[in-house]
Amino acid sequence: MNTSVLHYLKTHETAYLESLTECLKIPSVSTDPVFKNHILECAHFVKSHLEKIGLESVQIFPTAGHPIVYAQWCHAPGKPTVLLYGHYDVQPADPLELWTTPPFEPTIRDGNLYARGVSDDKGQVFCHLNAIEAWLQATGALPVNVKIIIEGEEEIGSPHLTSFITEHRELLKADVALVSDTPMIALNTPSICFSLRGLLYLEITATGANSDLHSGQNGGAVPNPINALATIISKLKNDQGLVLIPGFYEDVLPISEEVHQALLSLPHSDAAYAQHLGLDTLTGESEFTSLERRWLRPTLDCNGIIGGYTGEGAKTVIPSQAKLKLSMRLVANQDPHKIEKAFKDFLPSITPPGIQLALQVHSGAFPARINPQHPAIQAGIKALEKAFNTQAHLQGEGGTIPVVNEFEKQLGIQTVLMGFNLIEDGIHAPNEKFSLSNYQKGTLASTYFWEELALKH
Amino acid sequence: MNTSVLHYLKTHETAYLESLTECLKIPSVSTDPVFKNHILECAHFVKSHLEKIGLESVQIFPTAGHPIVYAQWCHAPGKPTVLLYGHYDVQPADPLELWTTPPFEPTIRDGNLYARGVSDDKGQVFCHLNAIEAWLQATGALPVNVKIIIEGEEEIGSPHLTSFITEHRELLKADVALVSDTPMIALNTPSICFSLRGLLYLEITATGANSDLHSGQNGGAVPNPINALATIISKLKNDQGLVLIPGFYEDVLPISEEVHQALLSLPHSDAAYAQHLGLDTLTGESEFTSLERRWLRPTLDCNGIIGGYTGEGAKTVIPSQAKLKLSMRLVANQDPHKIEKAFKDFLPSITPPGIQLALQVHSGAFPARINPQHPAIQAGIKALEKAFNTQAHLQGEGGTIPVVNEFEKQLGIQTVLMGFNLIEDGIHAPNEKFSLSNYQKGTLASTYFWEELALKH
Repeated sequence: MNTSVLHYLKTHETAYLESLTECLKIPSVSTDPVFKNHILECAHFVKSHLEKIGLESVQIFPTAGHPIVYAQWCHAPGKPTVLLYGHYDVQPADPLELWTTPPFEPTIRDGNLYARGVSDDKGQVFCHLNAIEAWLQATGALPVNVKIIIEGEEEIGSPHLTSFITEHRELLKADVALVSDTPMIALNTPSICFSLRGLLYLEITATGANSDLHSGQNGGAVPNPINALATIISKLKNDQGLVLIPGFYEDVLPISEEVHQALLSLPHSDAAYAQHLGLDTLTGESEFTSLERRWLRPTLDCNGIIGGYTGEGAKTVIPSQAKLKLSMRLVANQDPHKIEKAFKDFLPSITPPGIQLALQVHSGAFPARINPQHPAIQAGIKALEKAFNTQAHLQGEGGTIPVVNEFEKQLGIQTVLMGFNLIEDGIHAPNEKFSLSNYQKGTLASTYFWEELALKH
Repeated sequence: MNTSVLHYLKTHETAYLESLTECLKIPSVSTDPVFKNHILECAHFVKSHLEKIGLESVQIFPTAGHPIVYAQWCHAPGKPTVLLYGHYDVQPADPLELWTTPPFEPTIRDGNLYARGVSDDKGQVFCHLNAIEAWLQATGALPVNVKIIIEGEEEIGSPHLTSFITEHRELLKADVALVSDTPMIALNTPSICFSLRGLLYLEITATGANSDLHSGQNGGAVPNPINALATIISKLKNDQGLVLIPGFYEDVLPISEEVHQALLSLPHSDAAYAQHLGLDTLTGESEFTSLERRWLRPTLDCNGIIGGYTGEGAKTVIPSQAKLKLSMRLVANQDPHKIEKAFKDFLPSITPPGIQLALQVHSGAFPARINPQHPAIQAGIKALEKAFNTQAHLQGEGGTIPVVNEFEKQLGIQTVLMGFNLIEDGIHAPNEKFSLSNYQKGTLASTYFWEELALKH
């Protein structure tokens, strides 16, 4: 490794922290229209930063939703081209009262940086931008060609990314993609991810009578949309973690003995995981390990529900409406469209009498499985082992990164999922954080990665 | 009937309207301290009026809240004593902009008197006061003994009435109570209510992990409090309207054939009721009529639920907590304390693994049922039929009027619920009204009632 690059890293730690902090101050919440101006502000911030660190062709592509920021550096002829993907949008910060320090006022405590989006995904994006900055500023060049897209709609299911990729297939042509939006298996235990779950996210509005009713005068003779949603939920999944939609498990790939053993070898403890979450027991399908249940088995969870009187005290009302958000996590080779159809076919049979349902599909995403023998995966493992100075593992991921499937389908390339945050960093939750040490080692790993990838070719 | 009493009624219609109008001009809103002086003003107005019409021992009893006005006329030895209860306080009038004419400027339109409190409960109280006035002024006597309490805190849950009854048990000693604070079944269709449902209102907080979790990274291995509440709800009541708590129906009185037939004879149409509510079907226990289900069968309804993400769009979260408000309507002879115990005993057996529950009891109230053969009920029916010149009906009421149970528990007496207003009179809503025709017929019915009651003994 060129020593001037390493020197640059060492002398710019404060500057790296400042850049990330500025970005984190922008409340770029993508799902809520109230934050639309902040989304635009954040896109422009990212664009300026990409220009500042030496990237070229930097531009903001508008979409029908939030814009995508693009940049490239392509002066390494004969070397591979990496398509780096990240997102600048974040999850909503509520419930605000549970944050120790405000979500958009980044704060350091005990070696961690706390802010909404610091782990998911701004901090991880900056690891790569910092590494690129170091190469370009210290040596004037990168060991490989790089193309970068940073989008603003990941947290709402990337509704415009697919068409963007389709429209810019030539511009985005690359040999491999790189995404850092997954966690490492544990602190000081770097890992690369080989599987992602897909998603089907739905919203159901249940309507009974045409107005709220007095529960005394009407109770017993009229449908109750809260009770109705409860009935529906209870018939979608049982207490043993089994999803009851007919055909739901039809396309699920079995877990091979090899993968089963590989996961058993990971430094993971169910007891520690449960204790960390304050649980006296883990739940779900007992014939699979908890990591298998989280990474390689599909599931169904309610994500939000509201109906009737939710203020202080008591109100004797039967509400006219209640709303439910629920999602299914899918695994290879489940198809979200096929599952959506199975769900819609099943729903009428579990809907209580007198209730009208309105169904809205928020997003669908395919699951993904990746070949661990790909040279970029191998380069990633090397880079991680150098940066963290320890063995790197292969792991799964329970979340969804729909773009991985799009890259494979549209660009014909595989994706290296090199994550730097930790499961306990609390993404999507109050007090989201990112370890400063991982911010630094992630930056170092990315710096090595560009070099390792050039060597593999 | 003494013709001089009927003559008095006929020649005093204008005066009766003026007295009520004066009372309605006083904004006696009990819940808002801003109106405290008007509450006192109204109590004094009522006191003066009671004195004016010839009642005795008229006095204002202070309470820790708003005062109670008392009066009596007890010079009918050997005749029953009736305890008349009403309230002079009213609901707040907001939203003011929805009133066609100001809420405290009583106005006649299309044969109705519009004002806050005209139906609930001042107009109904004046029906009885007018009748008493007619008897006392025209004949110098009432056919029965009467004791009257008119309180100022009904709209805020009568917080000081129970202790008032306890402290004045001797003073309030009576043979039967009379309350006019319920509606008639329909216009020109007088009715007497013989049953009230009780209430048990609970709140359940379900907790899974100690913080909100990413549904992708954790889904399949951790408990979900929304799914858990759904499971619990679905095991408390089934789609056929049956409450599944063991022992729930143990003390429920069967519906006699007499009552069954009486309710069948009511001018009620399930189709019209369903259409009014925008429902394609009514729900609940199919072996009972809808009126039986609303009045004489216990039930369970969720009144409010909240958990997880409830804003726009999608958030992939497994919430740490979800909250449910639910209530059971009870019927004679269910005991809210016994039902509460049965619920608490049952709850652990239907709680999914990994979920902690916290239970809060908001309120409990006993149901009430009065035998339709009770002489006071029979007197009421006779009086209504004479006044309205049509058949009077027996009806139930699905809601709760706690004072009825207090009278039974503390004074050992049953209550005649003789209502003169209509469901469509909009109590608690803007443009509350009371039909002038019902004001007149209610007064006449009360006049007959005193006489009929004396005849029954």
